[in-house]
Parts: sequence; C-alpha cells; structure tokens
Amino acid sequence: MKAEETLTAAIPMRQVGPLRLVYDGAEETVCVPMATFESPLWPSTARGARVSMQTAGIAVSIAADVMARSILLEAPSAAEAVAAVASLCNDKPRIAEAVNTTSRFGRFSDLHWQIVGNLVYLRIEMQTGDASGHNMVTAGAEAAMNAILAWHPNLRYSSLSANYCTDKKTSAVNGILGRGKYAIAELRVPEALCRKLLRTTPQAIATLNTRKNLLGTALAGGTRSANAHAANMLLAVYLATGQDAANIIEGSQAFTLAETDQETGDLRFSVTLPNLIVGTVGNGKALPFVEANLEALGCRQARATGDNARRLAAITAAAVLCGELSLMAALTNPGELMNAHRKLERAGRE
Amino acid sequence: MKAEETLTAAIPMRQVGPLRLVYDGAEETVCVPMATFESPLWPSTARGARVSMQTAGIAVSIAADVMARSILLEAPSAAEAVAAVASLCNDKPRIAEAVNTTSRFGRFSDLHWQIVGNLVYLRIEMQTGDASGHNMVTAGAEAAMNAILAWHPNLRYSSLSANYCTDKKTSAVNGILGRGKYAIAELRVPEALCRKLLRTTPQAIATLNTRKNLLGTALAGGTRSANAHAANMLLAVYLATGQDAANIIEGSQAFTLAETDQETGDLRFSVTLPNLIVGTVGNGKALPFVEANLEALGCRQARATGDNARRLAAITAAAVLCGELSLMAALTNPGELMNAHRKLERAGRE
Amino acid sequence: MKAEETLTAAIPMRQVGPLRLVYDGAEETVCVPMATFESPLWPSTARGARVSMQTAGIAVSIAADVMARSILLEAPSAAEAVAAVASLCNDKPRIAEAVNTTSRFGRFSDLHWQIVGNLVYLRIEMQTGDASGHNMVTAGAEAAMNAILAWHPNLRYSSLSANYCTDKKTSAVNGILGRGKYAIAELRVPEALCRKLLRTTPQAIATLNTRKNLLGTALAGGTRSANAHAANMLLAVYLATGQDAANIIEGSQAFTLAETDQETGDLRFSVTLPNLIVGTVGNGKALPFVEANLEALGCRQARATGDNARRLAAITAAAVLCGELSLMAALTNPGELMNAHRKLERAGRE
Amino acid sequence: MKAEETLTAAIPMRQVGPLRLVYDGAEETVCVPMATFESPLWPSTARGARVSMQTAGIAVSIAADVMARSILLEAPSAAEAVAAVASLCNDKPRIAEAVNTTSRFGRFSDLHWQIVGNLVYLRIEMQTGDASGHNMVTAGAEAAMNAILAWHPNLRYSSLSANYCTDKKTSAVNGILGRGKYAIAELRVPEALCRKLLRTTPQAIATLNTRKNLLGTALAGGTRSANAHAANMLLAVYLATGQDAANIIEGSQAFTLAETDQETGDLRFSVTLPNLIVGTVGNGKALPFVEANLEALGCRQARATGDNARRLAAITAAAVLCGELSLMAALTNPGELMNAHRKLERAGRE
Repeated sequence: MKAEETLTAAIPMRQVGPLRLVYDGAEETVCVPMATFESPLWPSTARGARVSMQTAGIAVSIAADVMARSILLEAPSAAEAVAAVASLCNDKPRIAEAVNTTSRFGRFSDLHWQIVGNLVYLRIEMQTGDASGHNMVTAGAEAAMNAILAWHPNLRYSSLSANYCTDKKTSAVNGILGRGKYAIAELRVPEALCRKLLRTTPQAIATLNTRKNLLGTALAGGTRSANAHAANMLLAVYLATGQDAANIIEGSQAFTLAETDQETGDLRFSVTLPNLIVGTVGNGKALPFVEANLEALGCRQARATGDNARRLAAITAAAVLCGELSLMAALTNPGELMNAHRKLERAGRE
Repeated sequence: MKAEETLTAAIPMRQVGPLRLVYDGAEETVCVPMATFESPLWPSTARGARVSMQTAGIAVSIAADVMARSILLEAPSAAEAVAAVASLCNDKPRIAEAVNTTSRFGRFSDLHWQIVGNLVYLRIEMQTGDASGHNMVTAGAEAAMNAILAWHPNLRYSSLSANYCTDKKTSAVNGILGRGKYAIAELRVPEALCRKLLRTTPQAIATLNTRKNLLGTALAGGTRSANAHAANMLLAVYLATGQDAANIIEGSQAFTLAETDQETGDLRFSVTLPNLIVGTVGNGKALPFVEANLEALGCRQARATGDNARRLAAITAAAVLCGELSLMAALTNPGELMNAHRKLERAGRE
Repeated sequence: MKAEETLTAAIPMRQVGPLRLVYDGAEETVCVPMATFESPLWPSTARGARVSMQTAGIAVSIAADVMARSILLEAPSAAEAVAAVASLCNDKPRIAEAVNTTSRFGRFSDLHWQIVGNLVYLRIEMQTGDASGHNMVTAGAEAAMNAILAWHPNLRYSSLSANYCTDKKTSAVNGILGRGKYAIAELRVPEALCRKLLRTTPQAIATLNTRKNLLGTALAGGTRSANAHAANMLLAVYLATGQDAANIIEGSQAFTLAETDQETGDLRFSVTLPNLIVGTVGNGKALPFVEANLEALGCRQARATGDNARRLAAITAAAVLCGELSLMAALTNPGELMNAHRKLERAGRE
Repeated sequence: MKAEETLTAAIPMRQVGPLRLVYDGAEETVCVPMATFESPLWPSTARGARVSMQTAGIAVSIAADVMARSILLEAPSAAEAVAAVASLCNDKPRIAEAVNTTSRFGRFSDLHWQIVGNLVYLRIEMQTGDASGHNMVTAGAEAAMNAILAWHPNLRYSSLSANYCTDKKTSAVNGILGRGKYAIAELRVPEALCRKLLRTTPQAIATLNTRKNLLGTALAGGTRSANAHAANMLLAVYLATGQDAANIIEGSQAFTLAETDQETGDLRFSVTLPNLIVGTVGNGKALPFVEANLEALGCRQARATGDNARRLAAITAAAVLCGELSLMAALTNPGELMNAHRKLERAGRE
C-alpha cells in the first residue's frame, strides 16, 4: 500500500429520531445522523428521542459562542511580565485590529492572561462564524503575537500554543472562559410519561443523577463534568457531520441535571454543554456524506454568520440529552441495561 | 431516508509511516493507519515517524492492563456501609468466582471502594483479554452486584454504573487505579538529528514541554494530563482500527516528558498513556477495513490472550509519540506551525 | 526582637457544644475546642451541635486509616522502570521489613506506583498509630528507598518526596488510595426538628446540597470536594488540638451529602472526610492547652494503638458536620446568613 | 469549663529572617513572623531567607487584587436563564451601584456567570481595600442579589453562596477569574551561591521541580498547583498576622518554577500565588500579637487603600519562596531532609 494513498474508514451511520426540538423560537422534528462502531447507541438515543416526541420538545439555548488560542511569551522578569500584561489589557482595540486582519469572519472578542514567574500566557478569544475556528484562532493568535512582540521588544517568543487555550485536553478554563458554543438543552417529562416510556420515576432519575453523575464523578476526580455518557453521542454526531471529533474531549465535560418539579412532579431534565465545538464549514465539510447530513439538518442555509453552526450545536445538544435520558432511566432499573445490551448484541449478530 | 437503514460515514484514512518500533523484544517498522477529517495530521505524524527511522526506535512498554466498572449500592447507614465494604474486601475470592462465570476471557483482578454517607461505590476490575472490555466488565460487575446483594440483604441496588469506573469521562481514578493499557513510548533523539530533522534542540523541546504541557495544562485546570495533542493521534488510530473512539477522553490524559540527557545531550522524549483502551475483538472489529488494518498491524495473529490488544496499544502509543514530537518541535520555531498549516491547507485544496 | 526567641500567637478558643456523638458503639456528649480568629464560627457550629442533642446523635465511622509518602527514582529506560516496579510489587514483604525497622509503631501497609517515561513514583503507605505520621512515613520511605536502591543498582535517587504522596496539596490520589482517617459522620434529622431548630426543610437542604456543594463545586473546577465550609471547622479543631493545620488542604476535600428519606421524610445528612489527618502524639501535642484539650476529649486514654487518634478524627468529623448543617440550613433562607453575621459582628464589638 | 468562656490557643511563634525583599520599587530586609506547631519550618524558611540576603533580593509583584462571592438564582427555564444573564451583563453599572452602597471601601469590579439547566450562578467580584473581604463580598453579593431579584421577578432565590466563589475550597475558578492577591515572588540565585549555601545546582533544582512539583502533582490529580509545601509557610504567616487561615486552601494552589538561565547559569526561582487572600483590617487584626506583627511588617502605615494588604501579600509570598527554595534544595540531596529533621527534632526536645 502506497503511503500517500487516501483510503476511507467506512463507519456505520444511522439517522436517529425524530426528536422534537425547540430552537430559535420554532418547534420542529429532526433526525440526527450518528456514526459509530457501537450500534447499541442508536436505539438508546432513539428512545430518548421518542420521549421528546410526546412532550413540548427539547428546548435548546446557546448562551455563548467563542473560540480561543493561548500564546506563551517570556519576559525578563515577573515585574516586566506584569507591566506588559497591564499594558496589553489596555490595548485591546489595537490587538483586535491585528487579529481581525487575519480572517474575513474571525473577530477578536477578548483577552485573558496568566503569569507564572516571568512567563506570560495570553488567551486570545475570537468569534469564528460558522467555522469551529481552530485555524482561525491560530492565525489570529499568531498575528496578535507578532504585534505584541513588536510593541514589547523585551518580550520573547516561547510558543504559539501554550495549553491555556486549551484544545482537545480536559480543563477547567474552557468552561470558565468559554470555548465553543455554550449549549443548554432541557426537557420536561411528566411523571406519567416517565413511567410509561422509561419505566421509572422523576425522583429515581433525580436521585441517581446526584449520586452517579455529580457525586460519582467527583469521587473519580473528574473535572467540570457530571454526565453519564455524553461522549458517546457527541462522537457519533461529530463523525457524521465532519467535525474534528477530538473536540469531544472538552465537549464531553457536560452537566446533566435532573430535578423533580416540586409543584407538578414533572422530571426537569437538562444537559448543559459549555464547550460544544462544531462548525458547518472547514475541514471535512465538503465530503459528500457530510454535506448531505448538514443539508438534511438545515445547517447549510442562508443565515446570519454563525447561525448554521449554532443550529448544529443545538441539534447536537438535543441528541446528547436523548442519550443521557435513556441511559439514566435504564440504570434506575436493575437488570435493564444488561438485558438491553444482550438483546442488541444478539440483534446485531443476526 | 428510512431510520433503520445503516449507511456509512466514509472518513479519509492513510497509512502513516513507517516508524521504527521496539516492542516485546523485537525491532520492526510499522505503518499506522489513521482516519481523520484533519489531513495535516498525517504529515505531522509522519515527520515524527521519519525521525524514529533514524534512531534505535520507539521503545514501548505496557506496564499494566485492566478494565473496570463501578457499581453503586445503598446501605441503611454509614456504619453498615463500612461493615459491608470490610466484609467484601475479605471476600475477593468469592467475588472473583461470581465475576468469572460471566465470560470465557474476563477475569476478576481487584476491587476498590469509596463510601459517601451510606452510599457504597465498588469498582470491579478485570482482565479482559483482547477485548477493550466494556461489555465484559459490565457483565462482570452485574454478576458481582447480584452476588453481593444476595450476601448482604441490607444493601440495596442503586446503579450498575456509578461514574467511579469511569468510562469516557475525564478523571483521576482511571490513571491511579488503572483502566486500559498503561503504555509508555520513549525515543532517544541525538542532538544532531534533532537539529537536522526537527530544526530545534533537545533543550528547546524540554523547556517548552515544561512550560506548555506541564505548566500550561496546570494553569488550564487540567487533570492528570500533560501533552500537546495526543487526542488527535488517538482518534485517528481508533477510527482506523474499529475502537470505541469515545475512549480518547481518558486515553488523551497522557504525559509527554522531554529531558536532555545530562551526559550525551540527547533528547529523551516519551509519551506515557496510562489509560489506553483498545481491543482487537468486539464491536467494529469485523468491518472489512478494520480487519484489513488489524491484519496489517500484526494484531490478528495467534498469540497469548491479550497480546494482540497489547500490541495494538504499543503501536498506538508509538503513533502518539510521533505526533507529539513533531508538534512540539514545530512550536519551538516561531512561524513554523502556521506556515506548515498554510502549505498543507493549500495542498489539500489542489 | 531576637530571631531565635519563641513567642506565642494567642488565638481565641472556645469549647463548642455539647454535641451528641455515637462512636465505637457508645453514645456520649462532647464539647469540641475550636480556636479561630473568626468568632461567628462558634455559634454556627454550636447550632448544629444543638440539633444533634435532640436526635439519636451524630454517628461516626472510620473506614480506613493510613499515611503515605512517595519517592521518586530514575531508571535508565521505561522498560527498566517497568521491570523494577514489577519486581518491587512482588517484593512487598521485603520492603515492609525495611520500612518497619524505622519505627516502633509505623507499619508498612502497601505500595502503589506510577511510571512516566523512565521515572518511577512509588507511594509507600503505612499505619502510623496515634501519630499523624508525617515523620514516620518519611523515615519509612527513606528506608524503603535505600533498600530499593541497593537491590536495583540501575535505579538512581531523584527525590525523597515526589508529590504523589501528597502532603498538604489538593489531589485526587489521597482520597482514592487513602491518606489519613477516612471518616464518615452522619445525622438523621426529623422534618419537624429541621423546621423548628433550623427553620428549613429536608428537601430544601437536599436540593441546595446538590446545586451548591456538588454542582457549584464542579463548576468551580473543584477536585473531589463537595461541601460548604469544612475547612473552617477543621482549622479551628486542628489549632485547638495541636495538629499540623496545613493538612486542612486535603482534609477539606470532603463530601457533604443530604437526602430526604423517601419513607420517613427525615433529612439524612452526612459529611464524609476521606483524608482526615490527625494525631494525639507528636509535634505540638505537649503544649499545655493541647494536652488539656486532648484530655478533655478523652483522646489521651490507655487504648489500643491508634484508637486515640481515630477517636479524635471521629470528634473532628462530628464538629465538621455541625458546621456544615448550620450553614446549609442558613443558606436556604434568604437573608438569614447576613443577618446572623451582622448580629455576631455587632456582638463581637461590644 | 463554661462554654461561652473564650480561652486562647497559644501557638509557638518566631520571627524568621531577615530576608531581602524588593517590593514597590524599594529594597529592604524583613523578618517574617511565623506561628506553627511544626518547629522545623522555622530553620527551613530561614535558610531560604539567608540565601536571599546574598542576592539582589526576592522581587515581588502583585498582578491583580480582587475578592468574589457567587450567588445562585433559579429561572423558570434555561431560555429565561440565558436571557436574564444577557441582560445582567449589560447592566453592570447598575449592579455596581447596588453593590457599592454596602461598604465604604468595597467596589464592584466585574461579574461572571455559569448556567446549568435553569440555574444561574453569578460570581460578583469586588475590590475590598485592606480587608481580605469575605464579609464585604457577601454583603455586596446580597445587595446585588436583592436588586436582581427585583429587576427580574421571574428569577427566584436559591443561595447567597454557591461554591462558584469559591471560598476555602480547592478550585480552578479562583486562579482563572481571580480571588485574592495574584502575587509573584522571584529570586535569581547564582550557581556558586546555590552550591555554597544550598549544596546543589540550578540544574538539579530545575529538574526536580519539573519532576516533583509539576509532574508529581499532575499524577496525584492536583488542580492548578505545583509546589512542594507552600501551605506550611502560608499557614504560619497567616496565624501570626491574624488571617483567616482556612484560606490556605486556595492560597496553596501555587506554582513554583525553576529554570536555569541559559546565558548566566543562574537559578531562576519563582513562586506564583494567584490566590493569596490576606488583609490588614478585619477579624483578628485587633489582637495584640497581630497588631504588633503587622506594625513590625510595616503593614499598618498610612498608605493608599489596599496598599497595606498588598504589602502583606508581598511579604507572605517572599516567605513562601524561602521555604520552597530550602526544601527543594534539600530534596536534591539524598539523606539531607531526614538528617535535618532528625537534628531539629532532637534539638526541639532539648
């Protein structure tokens, strides 16, 4: 096999759903493409989608949208590092100017810093339109860096990427300062529906969520994470829509919350994904199956800059919610999970 | 489109290498299949592989190999929780017996616990042969749970999975107690080779590693992680070899270490992956492209149980090292990274 | 002032309580000495103690008791590091022998490892009787290290302490592998009592605990921690009983759990402190006020080795629970916390 | 003993130093009061101070100064939570007005948020002058909350403190968004001095710092922390100067950095403490020994608001650096640490 030949890894993919989505002021039904080697993921997510169809729908909000890259500079001393940072924080318009020359859609939004000894870590944050924005922030950060090095000749280059960004690595900074879309998907499930379709109760899911997703994750030494298996749904949607799926690392730092409404007894179920990195343009988006999927999802329409990508984030978050709800419900019932798995494994072999 | 129809996501894939590998007492050259939407990953990893070809090779050791699932039980009180755990810790042979009935290859290896109030988290650990072992540990944990509930009628079921496992979620527990193969890949690069092929010095890489991978990640609030982009290489090899790629979450919690040999001046470069979850049998492994890749990697041979999977872990770790070395070297040179990206992007469009 | 002259910092101290304690099969009432500059801490903790007096008491269990020190060794290669670790794991009796010569009370209990590249981190764990055990584990680790260096001439010394211990630093390892007493204090508060003494409901406290202590801490990027202010009570008891109070760092990584009993409606309230490091002998314990406090607490009696220290851990955990309960209750009532503070501040000035 | 009687815990205290300090444009020598049960801490810190006396001094910079409290509000839905947050982010001047009425010195500085499902976490940040500011931010946060609840009648109170502050709990948020003084202390030690006074080399300390403080802490699952024993020095200075010493929890999340100057061969040694919470007014500061210590440190002079507290932070950071340098140097020499301890323990008993 010639090393330069490009082959394909043909990963099984299905359309899962429909699920009922409430986004951007409208209600609609959507099927979500999911590519995975783990076929039990499809029926599991589909069960959550079926629940959503009998409710008012999964309402998704996007609370923020930003991309970031950090650079690393070296000052002669901590005092000079502090002085340089203070000056740069007063110089944001000039930095914005440098950054914004690098792209038609990328726009500087803010700057954050850390200093350790004489080392300066600068986190350049940008809006990146419909692109996930990795390359855009790298180019923007490089431009900012070159400008800063010109303005502050006492600073020296240390690295164009300094892990305070941080890309495809678990962190707290991404959730606190933002990286990707900050998506919140929520669903209200009446108790009767909970019993009928999920064979469980709102209280059982709420208790399990506290014990497993919050407390269990804390015991495991998890960071900014409280969910059952968000990574599975993220991976499958990412692969089906041409995303850089290594971003499931930060994407999966998601918070599932389940509470019982004290008045109605409904299950209030939500999944919050503060770092959902997706794009509808860029690497991988021109592949035929990706284009078809993005078209079918309505993420290739003429919209304001960034709206297609945010729509994709909303749909992805809804799919994550479906998978979370289904697994959490299953775990409240002893035996259900393994029986379902066994049945699916058998079915998969037939 | 009919919901139940299975399509495929055709992800671009290349054979990258060859790299020189030293594993299990033998030296060999290997090409590694990588499937990704991010085409610059191929030449970047290939550069690291080229360096390895001019050295004694990337030596990989597997220090441990285990899989885990945690269950959650509820006791009437903390005192009874403590008593039950003490009893179970003395009952490991009986638990092993229950666990080992569930699989031909899965073998109980140990048990760890946490107690919070009256809640008992038990982490069941097993050897799972050539399978990554997700289903095996779930079945084993279920058997253990049923036995324990029978022996301790004062305990009640709370969950078959309690996030102290922990699967596809960032954590500290997986690295400390083990989950997946504990793989260490190391390479010694003489200074002259470092300058010639990577246009940098051992000292520059060592300094950058401390500042970026260790300190930068700490600043970002990372957990048990110190690397530049391990997730990228892991994802690509996982997709090409039929792995459940959501396991890059824990897999990417890897440690890149770079030191200058005080005597020879060589760069000592290593990547340690304490949670490399891979298998050569199970879901996804029967797909034709997966079979072809596993065959080509020598991971479908008649070996002792688990040896094929450990070999795959070793090769994966070596590929991660190649990508880490290449990016770290590039970052020591201002401008190199963006120029390389721009060139590749252009090439990709032609 | 002559540098070598020893003065005293006279920190205000009160006896807080009594609280009702159930420990080691007996029920008793205890007043807990607390030294602090923050006088509102006394009435806050006292309120929790008053609640306990009207219940069956705060039941405390000690689930484990161990101390640890990690050493760092350097091997010529990762392969040799792996081989050395494998050999050492088979050599525990010999390591125990080396460790146990260093102290009359210190006893080797186990060994855990991490390998990064060619570096070996060994965590030596010991029982240390009634001492908190810092010096004992250092001496034990040094003995183990010297023995290991003699047995494995290919290993080299790198450090007697390697932060995988870890002492007075936040971590996940201490909770997972153990360091200090693993103490669990729990209290059942009937709903009527909750309303009468705490002006709140079990459900309100349970909901707040999930939102604030679990979710809020996760958002903050906390590690293995879910409590409101355990550090405050720990510090005050530590100072009053001669403890090395820098150990509140790991001590405060505690889990407050609050659930409503589905059958009785009681509040089930517990605080779990996996890393409570206390001793009744050693540095500071011979100071007159410390001796008086330890005597009054019944922690200077003729008991089996370690029992005095474990009793002190149990009392400390009970005091932490009192403070947690009081603050959590106050926070469920808008205005209560600030009003209480204002009143106390005024009282403090009179 | 009457419960309400206030006694004192008389903790041994010494003046350690002098150390050479460069702060706020001036060079001076300072003795630092340290109260501790652990007497070996005094000579250890004093050794670092002696090194500083033969250099240009420990230069300390304060890069930021802020205090924070988070509140928790509940919206009817995630969509309304997002809308409320967006509105509040545009309403900062009005929030500042509400906050600033609560104190003469406290000033609103910024606002950050997190949303999970329908829950809103708001982090109110303030300048608090010479006070550490715990009470000031609580009062400010309460005022902000009352105003917000009046402006947004769809929001409901959930908690006045929500652990996204976060107070006396380990976190990432405090370092990333700021809480306390952000202090950086750095010292340049020529190689000859390093050999003479510390019996080690810059390279040995730099290597150990990477292996122990950075890598060892990462292995332990530490969060935003890389130091040997910052907590010890912090505790001792805090107790001697009337600080709420439970704040060593966040204070000890400090970064020790050691690099060899490539040109001069000097050791560049620094300790960065992003969360140093100290005050020179407030609880505990009126005690005679505290007043005497603050006077002696020059922290009770007529200065601009906040300057006395920042000076205290600078001195504290310098003391931490002395202790870090001394222990790190000792650990590079096999046997030194235990021998020193044994000698001191013996001396302490005489």
